[in-house]
Formats: sequence, structure tokens, C-alpha cells
Amino acid sequence: MIGQNVLLLLLVVFTTLFLSPKTESNPPDVNKNPELMLNIDCTNYFYGKSPEQISGPSLDAYVDSILSSGATILMINTQAQRANYDSKAFEPFWQGFDPQAGDDQPYLAGLSKEAAARWRRLVTAMLTLHQQDIDYPQRIIERCRQKKVSPWISLRMNDTHNNDNIDHPMHSTLWVEHPEYWRVRDRKIDYYDRTFDYAHQAVRDHFMGLIGETLDRYDIDGLELDFLREPYIFKIGRESENRRLLTDWVQTVKNKVDAAAKQRGHDIGLSVRIPAWPQTAKNLGFDIANWAILGLIDCVVVSPRWATIDNNLPMSLWADLLHDTDVTLAGGLEVRYQPFADGPAQMASPEIATGTAASLLDRGADVIYLFNYFFMHFSRTEWSFEAFQKRLGAMADPQSCYRQSRRHVLTYPDVQAHGEPAAALLPSIAGHHFFRLYTGPKPANRSCQVLISTMENPSLNPCLRVNNVPCALKACHSDTLIYEVPDAAITAEQHTIEVISIDDAPLTITRVEFFVAEEK
Amino acid sequence: MIGQNVLLLLLVVFTTLFLSPKTESNPPDVNKNPELMLNIDCTNYFYGKSPEQISGPSLDAYVDSILSSGATILMINTQAQRANYDSKAFEPFWQGFDPQAGDDQPYLAGLSKEAAARWRRLVTAMLTLHQQDIDYPQRIIERCRQKKVSPWISLRMNDTHNNDNIDHPMHSTLWVEHPEYWRVRDRKIDYYDRTFDYAHQAVRDHFMGLIGETLDRYDIDGLELDFLREPYIFKIGRESENRRLLTDWVQTVKNKVDAAAKQRGHDIGLSVRIPAWPQTAKNLGFDIANWAILGLIDCVVVSPRWATIDNNLPMSLWADLLHDTDVTLAGGLEVRYQPFADGPAQMASPEIATGTAASLLDRGADVIYLFNYFFMHFSRTEWSFEAFQKRLGAMADPQSCYRQSRRHVLTYPDVQAHGEPAAALLPSIAGHHFFRLYTGPKPANRSCQVLISTMENPSLNPCLRVNNVPCALKACHSDTLIYEVPDAAITAEQHTIEVISIDDAPLTITRVEFFVAEEK
Repeated sequence: MIGQNVLLLLLVVFTTLFLSPKTESNPPDVNKNPELMLNIDCTNYFYGKSPEQISGPSLDAYVDSILSSGATILMINTQAQRANYDSKAFEPFWQGFDPQAGDDQPYLAGLSKEAAARWRRLVTAMLTLHQQDIDYPQRIIERCRQKKVSPWISLRMNDTHNNDNIDHPMHSTLWVEHPEYWRVRDRKIDYYDRTFDYAHQAVRDHFMGLIGETLDRYDIDGLELDFLREPYIFKIGRESENRRLLTDWVQTVKNKVDAAAKQRGHDIGLSVRIPAWPQTAKNLGFDIANWAILGLIDCVVVSPRWATIDNNLPMSLWADLLHDTDVTLAGGLEVRYQPFADGPAQMASPEIATGTAASLLDRGADVIYLFNYFFMHFSRTEWSFEAFQKRLGAMADPQSCYRQSRRHVLTYPDVQAHGEPAAALLPSIAGHHFFRLYTGPKPANRSCQVLISTMENPSLNPCLRVNNVPCALKACHSDTLIYEVPDAAITAEQHTIEVISIDDAPLTITRVEFFVAEEK
Repeated sequence: MIGQNVLLLLLVVFTTLFLSPKTESNPPDVNKNPELMLNIDCTNYFYGKSPEQISGPSLDAYVDSILSSGATILMINTQAQRANYDSKAFEPFWQGFDPQAGDDQPYLAGLSKEAAARWRRLVTAMLTLHQQDIDYPQRIIERCRQKKVSPWISLRMNDTHNNDNIDHPMHSTLWVEHPEYWRVRDRKIDYYDRTFDYAHQAVRDHFMGLIGETLDRYDIDGLELDFLREPYIFKIGRESENRRLLTDWVQTVKNKVDAAAKQRGHDIGLSVRIPAWPQTAKNLGFDIANWAILGLIDCVVVSPRWATIDNNLPMSLWADLLHDTDVTLAGGLEVRYQPFADGPAQMASPEIATGTAASLLDRGADVIYLFNYFFMHFSRTEWSFEAFQKRLGAMADPQSCYRQSRRHVLTYPDVQAHGEPAAALLPSIAGHHFFRLYTGPKPANRSCQVLISTMENPSLNPCLRVNNVPCALKACHSDTLIYEVPDAAITAEQHTIEVISIDDAPLTITRVEFFVAEEK
């Protein structure tokens, strides 16, 4: 969301700068099936906007531009450690901020000069909307209703942005004043050390308060517990002994949701966004299959956390786990593409997003869920406004998604419980390599290619086979080799890619992609 | 089974040499719950025996000694590529063998002088039993009935022992004459290249013939399809497109089983032994969750293949997958202990077997399934006859199993589909390590220790924590460090072990064990 990655920051800034409400989307039908879910975070609208750009109509236009994706369910995120509206349960972002005072005020004391100016702009934008008597979530909900889009609220269950800076104004008082609630205090393990430990009643109550307020205050179609910000909610090694406690707590949430539904006179769904692999989720305390059996949840969003889009998410495993329930299975897309941890990253292209969506839908996802997909007008990438509409819109219609050009990329699961193996394939250093990619429905009569990148001289021309069928080298640019996949190799669901170096010399492969041309 | 590993070969030879029917076990009750399943392979009884040692009573005594394990279900394996009885569907092992001719006869032509002598002894033993008009499976079934033990037959669905020697007499004519049915012909990938490709009708018919014969000929309580000998039954990359075909084929097996049950007037179960991880099983063509939903199977045996016992088998994931079915979930134990692929291996000790069984039972296994556990009289190891009885017997009674001393060891999944990541943690080379072990019910008031082995000088004394609690170094021998785990660190189900080197210097860890002393 904020500052975690320069790429994303630029992204949201550019997004907002180039935001244009000119195009009116066709109103998506809330009852149409399948759906498309899209999450908008609590700061994106405000980023880079001057107070003059903040208004009810401007927020409506922002929502309209987001909905040009074809999203039928809008997941409205309203907070991190603070809320972007005048919350009583959480502090609003602007609490403690004095718009009249200079940058030397206590609220901004934890920030550098540049950061203070940026942050001031952001909270000023939020405060401006509030001072116009416009409630951010309420206004978006109303706009969704007008557009026949289903509004949900998505709550981040343990956001820890900027946790290396205790004085950052985005932190909650509870977090600052109670380091004894942090998961790891005595040393540095990783980015997640200072997330809250849900074993503490006060922590659970803090989030339950926000849940209660959200349900009381907003007439939504559903509530989401976003456990991917962040998935580490118990002390390392203490997750299994707290699993039951968390299940009971989710039962309490469910009871609140049901009570709200009764009062509102319509169903309210409960969704959870959780780590991609079932055993990882369970090891971290999330007993998802049990939650489904107990009837606690209506939707499970299986997704990478942030580091990379994941074409190989285990959707069919989740589909098998949930087969006897009514739970909707959502497959999540992130915007980054990073073949291996700490490796080079870029934005996932429209083809990559389509490939991943096709792979997930083909293997049991009922719906696609987009996270950090705000770049509808980011004209300096392949994500033109047309691409944004065309690619995302098709994700609500699997057959249309499958027909588009698509690229299936090999990445890695970006969340593990501590002590679990990292199931990574790249970089792969060997003379003989195997890779497996889920590639959607059988791409019959469509040109298919495999692309690999190597650290060695590509003129070494390693042999490549797909499903045991040799593939001819078609092109070689810099570190990248492209092979044509013959029809005889083409299968449904997945392809196995084999790379054999000359004389079994070690070859370092850093990228593997399977491309399917658009259906003619 | 044969010759794959010297350790195992010695094992079975010694087993038979020291075999003693002296001890009469209490007859296990077939209706007792939980059960204990034990697989006996098709050659173990015969190994190392002279013709004079072959007889009905000797076979009965062999069965009795096996049953001193406390097994309540005996899985009688009757074949590899050939059968150990006078089968019409498969060739018997001795087909083509002339007991009167010398070692230069065509049947033995594929073997070295030493191997020919060994093999001759084995087939002579089998032939001797047959010539005594004793049918191996039938005799064991009868003994089981007398002992109130449930007899099942376990068929190896793609055994490929000695596939590097096409002239080995253990191969079937179908396999020798039809290399076009092999999965990989044109080059060497791995040990499994020459397993049959089930995409061929002739291959499926070959095994269906054996299944039909087994059901017609033997009055068994259940039939097992042992897909762990070997799990590679389709061409690489062609598994998913054949998944449906295999499911249909298993449906046909189920129909045959049901028809036999009707004819016999009692239930006949159908079990499948399959790779440990659900996604691996699915990628290899085994749609287990679907088979369960369709009602095709009564028991799923989740097990490593052979290379190592696996304390961390994903039992709770399987339990979640099968929760709404009546399918029995068996957790499989192998006899080797190998922390990492191609690393040093030893026999799993009684404590390791107990630890693994406790871990599997605690996480959802309904029953323990033992494979290659023949060493009831292998006096030169810790597997004394008393240990054999005490350790295996307790596996049929989880509470008793939990109370014994136990050792939970970190190993790796020994089966992957080609192109899947190898989920291995060892050897671990880092300054800061995390390991996660499933450790059974909370070992309250019991001494617990963690053992690690390193490649570096152990006097470097790395810091070790369990569930974030520092553990004191208790002993240091050669490459091994032993730490005492304080009560404050003890949890149920799993422990996370953290190792931190001095000054973050890289440390190579090759072994991680969690020991729980016997309950006082």
C-alpha cells in the first residue's frame, strides 16, 4: 500500500494523475455469474491529490474508472492501522494532524522532510473529504449501488506498513503503546516481526471493534477479513495451539455478520483472504477447511501476498477441499511478476494477468480477485485503458479469458510458515531441468511458445522439450530463448517443460514462460 | 523389494535367517479399532530359504511372526512383474526356469554368476512351495482367518525393479516384448523411465486381468492397488490428460470388487497406496479426492515411496480432503531414514518409527500402514523382537504410541511429478535456519531434546530456540549437538526449531530431530 515498493508507489501516483472519468462503463450486473472481485485500498484515491481535487463527484469518478474493469464486486478497503474515514473503532489517519501547523508538528516528527510533505498531502486529502462531510466508504457503497455493483468492505487484519519506524504517523496508538503485543520483540527476523499477536485478547478486541463498527455503520453485501495483510498473526511456533482460538473468534465474527444481515434484511457474505497453500494456511493458524465445514465463511480468496503473481496457485486442491460446501473459491492476482525471491521484478503484463486468470479459472476458481490492480490509465505501460478494460473484463467470463493471448509464468509461493520449505524452482541450476506450468484449457490450433532466460551465453542453445516433444528454437535475444511448441506437444491444464544443456553443463535458468497466442 | 538397496537386501536375508515362530502372538481382533496395516512383499518369505525350509507350516510360522507386530490387516503382496503363485494372469516368477538345468540356462542368462545363484535359490523356493501344492496367497489368507486377522491382497501397479537389465528373469513378457509401452524410451531420465504407460489399453488390460484373477481366486477382505510401485504411470506431461481415463479405470476395478463382494457375501474393501502430497498425486494422474467422492475407494494409504520415512506427511490436509467421506486414511511408514536426497541413510530406529506414527495419528491418520517392516528378529539393530512387538503393537493404539519414547525426524517428500519443486529443507546452508516438525500430542512433563548435525565444527555452538524459547546445549558429540527443550517451549502438534550461527556465519545443517522421552 504505502512505501513498500517504489514501483507500486509510482503506480498509484500515476494512476491518480492520469485518472479520467470520461469513459462510462456498462453497469455490471450484480447477479451475473461469474463475477469479478476487485480490491481498492484505503489510500489510492487520495494519493497525489490536492485538496481541490477532492470531492464527492471526484470520488464517484474514481469508483467509475475502477468499475470500468468490469468488476462486479468491489472490495473497499478502509484501513491499515488507521482508518481513512472518521472511525471510532480505529483512529483516522489524520488524528493528531494539525493542518494549520508546519511540518515540524509532532504528528510528522517521525518522517524525513520529503516523506513529511508527501504524508501531509495524503492526510490532507483524507481530511478534506471528511471535512466535506463525505464518508469515504459510504460514498463508494452508494456509487456501487447506483452502478449495480456489489459493495463489500475488506479489513486488513494485521497491516504492518512502516513498522521499522515506530514514530510513523500511520501507526495506531495500540500498536505504539503495546510492543508486548508484537509477535517478535527481542530481535530481527523479518518484515513481520512487529505484527500483532492475536493470542492477546486486547488485539482481538481491537479488530472486533472495527468489525462491529463496519457492520453497524455500513450497509454492505459482504465483509472480508484480509489475513494477507499480514498472514503472521501468532508467534512463531505458537500458531497450531492458537488455531482453535482463531476459529472461535471467526465464529464470533460470523455471528455478528449474521446479526447484521438480519437487521439489514439481506444476506451479508463473509470472505477471508488467506495464504495460497492449504498447509501453510493451517500452519499459520487458519483452519480454512474447518471454517468452511462449520459454515463460517462464504468466500475464500486464495492469493499470493504481494511479491509476485502466481500462475501455479493450487486451485484444484482448494476446489477439492471445498467441494462439498457452498463456499465461493476466488483466485487472487497480484500486480508484480518476480520469478524468484529477491530476484528482478516487473509489473505483470496484461498477457501475464490473463494467463494467470485462465490458469486459476481452469482449475477450479469460481471467480478472479484482483489486488493492487489500479492502473487503468497507466499509459506508459502495456496497461492502456483499453487493455485494462479488455483484460480484466474478460476475467469475469472464462471462455472469453481463454481466447485472449496469454502468458503463463513460473514464479513461487511468497508466503511460508517459518520452517516450511520454500517451494521454489527458479533460479534452476542444473544440466537437466524440469518445470511444470498450469496453462488453462487446451490451446488447440493456437501458436504456443516457451520462453526461457539463462545466465549463460544463450548461443549454447539448450534443447527444450514440452511434454517430451522437442521444440525448435525460434528466436534468441540477449539472455532469452524462444521455442515454438508443436501441436503434438499441446495438452490441457498443464505442460511440462524440459531443458537439457549441451553436454550436461550446468545451466542457470532464471525465467520460464509459456505463451499462447490469441485465438484466431 | 529386490536388489534395489543392499541394506534392504541384507535386511530380508537376515530377517529370514533369524526368523523364529517361537512366540505366539495374541490373535488381533479384526473388528478392533484402530487397526494396524502391514504389507508383506512377494519375496520376503522365500529369501535365503533352502527348499527344505519351505513348507506350509513354515509359511504359517512366517505369518505368525509377522503378526506378532499386532497387525490387524495383513496386506499380502503377490507379485512384481511376475507372481509368486501359479498365476494365469501374470507369469509366475519361475516360468522358464528349469530346476534340473545349470546356471547357464536361458532363464538365468541375464544374470551374473553370483546373481544367478541368488536368483536360482529364490525361484527354487517359490517353485518348491508351488510343487507342494501350496498356494502362497491362499495359505496366508487361511492363516490370517485362523488368527482373526483381516487378509487383503496388495498389487503393485507398475513395479520396475531391475529395469536396467532387460534380460533379468523377473520381467514379464509383455514388458520385454513391448518397449513401446514404456514411458520413456529414447533417453535416460531416471529410474522410472521404463515403467508402463497406462495410456495403452494393453497395459491397463494386463493389470485388470490380474485384478480379476485375484478377486476370482481369493476370498479376501480387501484389494489394494499399490501405485507407489511405481507412481509414474503416464508419460511426463501427459498425466493430466489421462486423469479421467484412470478414474474410469478405477471405477471398473471398483465394479469388479463389488461384484466379487456380492458373490462372496461380504464386503471387500478397495485401497490405494499413493504419493504423499495431494497435488503431486493429482499431477501424476491420481484424482484421489474425486475417487473418494465417487465412492470408488475405501482406504487411502498416504506414504513415502521408499527413500525415507516421513514424519511430516501432510495428514491433516488429507483428513480435510476426505472429511466428508467414509474413506479410511492410512499413514504410511517406510524403513529408511534419509534426511535429504542422495544423503546418508540408515534404518529408521524404533524411536523414529514411533515418532512418525505418533505424528501421523495425531494429525488425522485413522491407521498406520507399515511397508518393508519385516525386521522382527533383526537382532543386530535396535529392532529386537521385543522392540518390534512393543513399537508396532502400540501403533494400533494411539494413546499407547504417544506415551512411548519417540523421535521426530526431518526428511523430505521422496516423490514429485517432474517439474514440481522439491520441498526439501536439508541440507540447510544459512546463518539463520528455521525447521518445523510435527511432534504429536503435547509432551507435557516429558524430557524433550533437539538434535542437530552440522558440517562445521560443532564447537561453534550455534544458538537454538524452540518456539522462540532458547534451549541450553546439553551435549556435543562429533558432528552432533543436543539441546534440552524447556517446558515453556512445549506445544501440541508441532514445534518450530530455529538455529542461529555465531556472527551469522553460514552453517550447514544436515540433520534435525526432536526427541520426546518415554512418559514416566
